[in-house]
Amino acid sequence: MTVKFIAVGKIDAEYLREAVSIYKNRLMHYVPFELICIPDIKNAGKLSENQLKIREGENILETLKTGDEIILLDEKGETFSSPEFATFISKKINSGTKRLVFIAGGAYGFSEEMYKKASTTVSLSRMTFNHQMVRLVFIEQLYRAFTIIRGEPYHHK
Amino acid sequence: MTVKFIAVGKIDAEYLREAVSIYKNRLMHYVPFELICIPDIKNAGKLSENQLKIREGENILETLKTGDEIILLDEKGETFSSPEFATFISKKINSGTKRLVFIAGGAYGFSEEMYKKASTTVSLSRMTFNHQMVRLVFIEQLYRAFTIIRGEPYHHK
Repeated sequence: MTVKFIAVGKIDAEYLREAVSIYKNRLMHYVPFELICIPDIKNAGKLSENQLKIREGENILETLKTGDEIILLDEKGETFSSPEFATFISKKINSGTKRLVFIAGGAYGFSEEMYKKASTTVSLSRMTFNHQMVRLVFIEQLYRAFTIIRGEPYHHK
Repeated sequence: MTVKFIAVGKIDAEYLREAVSIYKNRLMHYVPFELICIPDIKNAGKLSENQLKIREGENILETLKTGDEIILLDEKGETFSSPEFATFISKKINSGTKRLVFIAGGAYGFSEEMYKKASTTVSLSRMTFNHQMVRLVFIEQLYRAFTIIRGEPYHHK
């Protein structure tokens, strides 16, 4: 299985780029992993919230392939403890999922179309995280999940 | 009201120090805020999990003053959406709390003594976050809460 993580917008702060790259490299010891940043929509300020979500959704869908299993990161989604999230990933591996694609939306979330394409939504927190920071938090969580699957000591509890 | 955030251990990565400092400066436009990093316990490897939590707890308690209202960050605590967390803080301001003290524990969490001293526990997520990264996530969340209280546009939803 390979894991893709698609996020809307470039990473705008150097400290986040560095942090994301550290955890991405750690994660790639466990699973083939790709981080895709979808470019921000130009003139986004002239669009309504809904138009922006639709345009972002179209750009996301262009990067997907048939057979990708799509999981949206959405604060209203299902919540997991870290061991439960590891089990969730483990089940995907065992059920023969080829490409597991997690998607973090833009500042306003996802279009209706994106919800239709997704197999499920996962919540990192009921709190809204800065959509840049979500990348770091989620990649660390993916890394943590794979260390739990392997029975390694990174996750203490 | 002033807000203190106590965390165990130095911030060990430069990118996190930078990120934390950016959000700390933003937050201080809204509320007097202090971040206290409790030094790591020396020879922690020779202590049991429980001994380590007790020693960390003693060091935390030394920094507290009578009348501090203590809130532990613990993944088993109460969960909030960001607007709910803003309301939680707003109520503390209105009820005359002088010093609101949030505490992030070490890698193994808190001693029994710390739970006894706390008025409540708050969960950022059911997932376990890297205890270094929690600082960034939480300070951003505090900043977000104050922008919500002031009705400012940082929090979109």
